Amino acid sequence: MASTRKSRGGLTYAHSGVDTDRRARSLAALLAAARYDSPASHGCPVGPIGHYAGLIRIGRETLAVTTDTVGTKVLLAQQLGRYQEIGEDVVAINVNDLASVGARAAGLVDVINCPRPDPTVFAALGRGIRRGLAAAECALLGGETAVVPDLLKAIDVGGTAIGFFPNGRRPVTGGRIRPGDRILGIPSSGFHANGYTLLRAVLRKRSMDLRRPRPGARVPLGVELLRATRTYTRASEALADASYIHGFGHLSGGGVLNLLRLRPDVAFVLDRWPELSDQFAWIRELGEVADRELFRTFNMGVGFAAIVAPKGVAPALRALRRAGFADSVEVGQVTEGRGVHLSGWGISYHEYA
Amino acid sequence: MASTRKSRGGLTYAHSGVDTDRRARSLAALLAAARYDSPASHGCPVGPIGHYAGLIRIGRETLAVTTDTVGTKVLLAQQLGRYQEIGEDVVAINVNDLASVGARAAGLVDVINCPRPDPTVFAALGRGIRRGLAAAECALLGGETAVVPDLLKAIDVGGTAIGFFPNGRRPVTGGRIRPGDRILGIPSSGFHANGYTLLRAVLRKRSMDLRRPRPGARVPLGVELLRATRTYTRASEALADASYIHGFGHLSGGGVLNLLRLRPDVAFVLDRWPELSDQFAWIRELGEVADRELFRTFNMGVGFAAIVAPKGVAPALRALRRAGFADSVEVGQVTEGRGVHLSGWGISYHEYA
Repeated sequence: MASTRKSRGGLTYAHSGVDTDRRARSLAALLAAARYDSPASHGCPVGPIGHYAGLIRIGRETLAVTTDTVGTKVLLAQQLGRYQEIGEDVVAINVNDLASVGARAAGLVDVINCPRPDPTVFAALGRGIRRGLAAAECALLGGETAVVPDLLKAIDVGGTAIGFFPNGRRPVTGGRIRPGDRILGIPSSGFHANGYTLLRAVLRKRSMDLRRPRPGARVPLGVELLRATRTYTRASEALADASYIHGFGHLSGGGVLNLLRLRPDVAFVLDRWPELSDQFAWIRELGEVADRELFRTFNMGVGFAAIVAPKGVAPALRALRRAGFADSVEVGQVTEGRGVHLSGWGISYHEYA
Repeated sequence: MASTRKSRGGLTYAHSGVDTDRRARSLAALLAAARYDSPASHGCPVGPIGHYAGLIRIGRETLAVTTDTVGTKVLLAQQLGRYQEIGEDVVAINVNDLASVGARAAGLVDVINCPRPDPTVFAALGRGIRRGLAAAECALLGGETAVVPDLLKAIDVGGTAIGFFPNGRRPVTGGRIRPGDRILGIPSSGFHANGYTLLRAVLRKRSMDLRRPRPGARVPLGVELLRATRTYTRASEALADASYIHGFGHLSGGGVLNLLRLRPDVAFVLDRWPELSDQFAWIRELGEVADRELFRTFNMGVGFAAIVAPKGVAPALRALRRAGFADSVEVGQVTEGRGVHLSGWGISYHEYA
């Protein structure tokens, strides 16, 4: 691209090659044209398109369906010749979206498109997929592999996950969120699988060496940046049946803006955001990306949020500890108003894009 | 590629850029490494991976899940600037796999990855998706759009469909197929969305002009080759509850080889294959691809097969006529033996790859 630098504040996602406004307009055009109401004999969709997962009532069960791809993180994997993390990611990013509506992960199908299939790469992807499935206790139901050298510059790894609501559990949609609620955050394991187009632009601009550790780190930078997405299925399972749970948020692409998907008519005030972990402090210190852009591109250290009634804070933290998420912390509160506000950072967002 | 010509018989899929053996080995490596048995509390997978659809028992329902992409047909769409057919295809290819196990289509999620989103292209895709949804009476549950210019040379369009088995219907897996059964075929609408890497190689080699009709045709060749995949949902719905139905086959990528997925221990003898329709006669007459390769790459005029008990032939054809498939015909029979045999063509296949 001609320029990757804005006049103020450095790299943005648009300048690194992703124009979120144009994407939003394209998506709106598709959804408007695709509108079709299927007959009830073919299942009854529940709620609008656009939440973390599509919900549909089929016979006597309500199902949740999510689909997502690992995106350009694969280009980093390709540079390093390591693919296991990508396999784990493709499961995690999908089951985490299921976790966001309180659905229990049941099955996954994967889609691997590539210019040329390599058994070694596929075996590594398979090992990662198994790790992801085990973390979510989810079955592999099938998949699709297309060899499309004319279409792809590198391997593309995506998937779709199906979940359900056991024993009369109701979907957690955020509709019960109200001012006074508290926001708990569960740390991420790193960049997960979002923002890699921007991240790679920073690496290129700074001519970073992926094979050496960054200052203060012990593993090579590339290995650190590839770390697999944390799986939040057990966190959601530990909380989803509790009456104090009012919403879940998966801070994937869009970072803290994901909270806006839960309810448009309250304010999410993140006034206790944890100190940035090494990785996020490092990307910030490089100084190529403004804080406002960082928090709407990366998870900035918190991968999953639970919005709970005030009386739920202590029991939720206890349940999370028992489920293996002892590092969960309170990160903010819900107030009257609108938008997402990072009080300590002087940042407010009012729209998703 | 260095050469697109084999010593005998012309172009093959491997020479056009798709190495099916290498793909098979890669897929086997992935499946071996990904093996994981999820606990019954997370749903119970039914049957092995590798059939047209993954089946899973969730609570009181059995669900079918399929995933597929339109592949390199999008490159033809791009050349012609027409995308509606691609939208219809992405629904049809997935619900047709659901139809192959007798599952009723319920919901679809789409995945559109592109180098740069274009609202006009997305609107055309949306119109096609609506047509596909209406043909299958299926709901759109959500989707994913990724802007990944570093990963893709052109737009990539895929989807995942979920189906179910209404009113106690049992999945149609082919397990009841036996010698003596008859094979009915429902005509395709053209190349559907398979074999386009090979098809485009032929077009290039012959320097065909996509903007002019081929001899004997009335619409430009490009428009003819883009024609959307026929949707077989209503055919499956019309037959799936009948006791005489022993199997369904979606003749997608792999052509007649798809029948091998139904049962390995019988022979599918296609001794009444219909006369080739204009399009398939044309590609054959070009002489660049051997017959053996044609029938394992393209559907060659039959997009969906129903394997029925002998007494089921007449009622099945009547039911298909009422469902809008009056062009269905008997194309062969099941006998003792193995493999797929095109008697009139002197072609036998014994393995899927």
